[in-house]
Amino acid sequence: MMEKSLLYNGPKKEIVFLDQLKLPLEQKYVTCKSFAGMCDAILSMKLRGAPLIGVSGAFGLLLWCLENRKKYKDNETGKFLAAFEKACHEMAHVRPTAVNLKWACDRVYRYAAGLKTSSVDKIIDSIEKLCVKMDADDISICEKIGMNGAKHIKAKHGKKLRILTHCNAGSLATCGYGTAVGVIRSAHAAGILSHVLVDETRPYLQGARITAYELSEDKIPYYLICDNMAGWLMKKGEVDVIITGADRIAANGDAANKIGTYSLSVLAHENGVPMYIAAPESTFDLTLKNGEGIKIEERNPAEVTHAHGVRIAPADARVKNPAFDVTPAKYLAGIITEHGVIEKPYVSNIKKILG
Amino acid sequence: MMEKSLLYNGPKKEIVFLDQLKLPLEQKYVTCKSFAGMCDAILSMKLRGAPLIGVSGAFGLLLWCLENRKKYKDNETGKFLAAFEKACHEMAHVRPTAVNLKWACDRVYRYAAGLKTSSVDKIIDSIEKLCVKMDADDISICEKIGMNGAKHIKAKHGKKLRILTHCNAGSLATCGYGTAVGVIRSAHAAGILSHVLVDETRPYLQGARITAYELSEDKIPYYLICDNMAGWLMKKGEVDVIITGADRIAANGDAANKIGTYSLSVLAHENGVPMYIAAPESTFDLTLKNGEGIKIEERNPAEVTHAHGVRIAPADARVKNPAFDVTPAKYLAGIITEHGVIEKPYVSNIKKILG
Repeated sequence: MMEKSLLYNGPKKEIVFLDQLKLPLEQKYVTCKSFAGMCDAILSMKLRGAPLIGVSGAFGLLLWCLENRKKYKDNETGKFLAAFEKACHEMAHVRPTAVNLKWACDRVYRYAAGLKTSSVDKIIDSIEKLCVKMDADDISICEKIGMNGAKHIKAKHGKKLRILTHCNAGSLATCGYGTAVGVIRSAHAAGILSHVLVDETRPYLQGARITAYELSEDKIPYYLICDNMAGWLMKKGEVDVIITGADRIAANGDAANKIGTYSLSVLAHENGVPMYIAAPESTFDLTLKNGEGIKIEERNPAEVTHAHGVRIAPADARVKNPAFDVTPAKYLAGIITEHGVIEKPYVSNIKKILG
Repeated sequence: MMEKSLLYNGPKKEIVFLDQLKLPLEQKYVTCKSFAGMCDAILSMKLRGAPLIGVSGAFGLLLWCLENRKKYKDNETGKFLAAFEKACHEMAHVRPTAVNLKWACDRVYRYAAGLKTSSVDKIIDSIEKLCVKMDADDISICEKIGMNGAKHIKAKHGKKLRILTHCNAGSLATCGYGTAVGVIRSAHAAGILSHVLVDETRPYLQGARITAYELSEDKIPYYLICDNMAGWLMKKGEVDVIITGADRIAANGDAANKIGTYSLSVLAHENGVPMYIAAPESTFDLTLKNGEGIKIEERNPAEVTHAHGVRIAPADARVKNPAFDVTPAKYLAGIITEHGVIEKPYVSNIKKILG
């Protein structure tokens, strides 16, 4: 299996991460010792993928603590926590669509606030332990998602499956193993995978650059395709199952994910191809009744006028660049979680399994 | 309006064309005096677009005549025509999907064969006149398509339309004015266009590189989008009409066009967005009952592993690269031709209008 893309060096109190902007042509590791550096890495998508930016946000908050430690006496816990709350709020809003970032920041803050009778040093020590645990937990959650998904699709859809995925919900989108790619890894290990069809995933090309890279590294057979080929391959009977990740899932199963996922779901429905979302509990936002309330991030126009740094459009081109869309739950065959595969009816089954 | 992308210089007996591989960053005109040069320009997509490669093929055959003239005495018409037939066959098969290339080569050959009692010089003179006429006819056909389309969508769908198009069916895909972009030009001139949504059209980026360039040159307002955004914009109510070109239309209205068109049609159908094909009579292949018999060209893997020349995928990536797909007629609101807009039922109406 691939190396981890995010590492915490405890003795040196620093984060080391793989700069995902450079993939697949360069494997560049970056060392970061500052809260601002982690915010920037998430905003610029050097670090990306809903579960990974959750844990990265938590480690960013740990770096804030270490940077700001000297400003407080050890018993000034109240003052420290008040400033820390602001940092948590700031980090939670660096990117708006993936709920995992907010989930992680809320979790770290609530945990710290629960220790308000402790010393500042004690709180920081505890936050460090929590971050390390969140990192490890994320991997084991992904492994469970992979196992649950592979078992389910084997039982439902048979052997030698051609699985299409979009964007990167792989080991580089998580702390390791991956969600959608986790299911693919487990399916490959179980001998039920023929090959993967990888959507290149414009504009940011996470499929071509990152998923293809992960699959190449792990010798899992795949074909890279352009996003606009997926529907035609479904129509020609060349896709057995679709599995993607998600950035935020509402209480009724509507799922925000990388732009293009909505279109896949309509095409899958039309062509009778079962489509699954694979995501951990932390991706659910049960405060939302359905997908309508999900905020869709509009990103930099240069992502569309350029491809991997090269200009492809006239200099005066205006663009639209919604980074995500929302797939209606009605088009999904199921949502694969660490607690099992959630099937229809989603409202009651999501409540039953996660509520 | 834009300059012509293909010009025949009669006195010099040479073709001058815009190298569409260089757009939009460079406007490079190429001079060609050989049959092989025109075959290569079509194969490599320096010249592309179904109607344009038809007329380019015809001019390529004229160059064959001029290059080979000296091999025959003026009364060796039979020998000349036998060799010319082989050249026509070769040119007709340089690219397989667009029927216009075959249509044009067949037309030139039949015309020449009809002159078998003439001298070789007389035949070549006549072929030259035919090519010049085909070039001029193509422009006036496009203008009629534009007028018919704009009148129809104004009557059916109202004013200030947001029109989505895919690939390039513009003045650079034809001898001038364009088919789908012809309708857009006419709609703009008639004041019923709000703006165009231009699919970038991976892998070859004809939308980003060529359609956007044409619209920029002509000051027609547009937004460039990635192909996988089109469905989501339809879902959000931001698309009023879709118009694309076609490469081959069967007797029942099934239409082969650039990869991604099929997906648009399914998404349009799901979201109640009317979708039209705009194409001249020469794009119809009435020998085909439906779209199943249309040969889909599989192009070079490097188109997918690269974007405008830059590698975006791992070195060992395998790809699929179907260059076209087939849109079932049932998803179309109409087919816009120079003879009028053909609506359902297609089989009888196509026969009535074109038969």
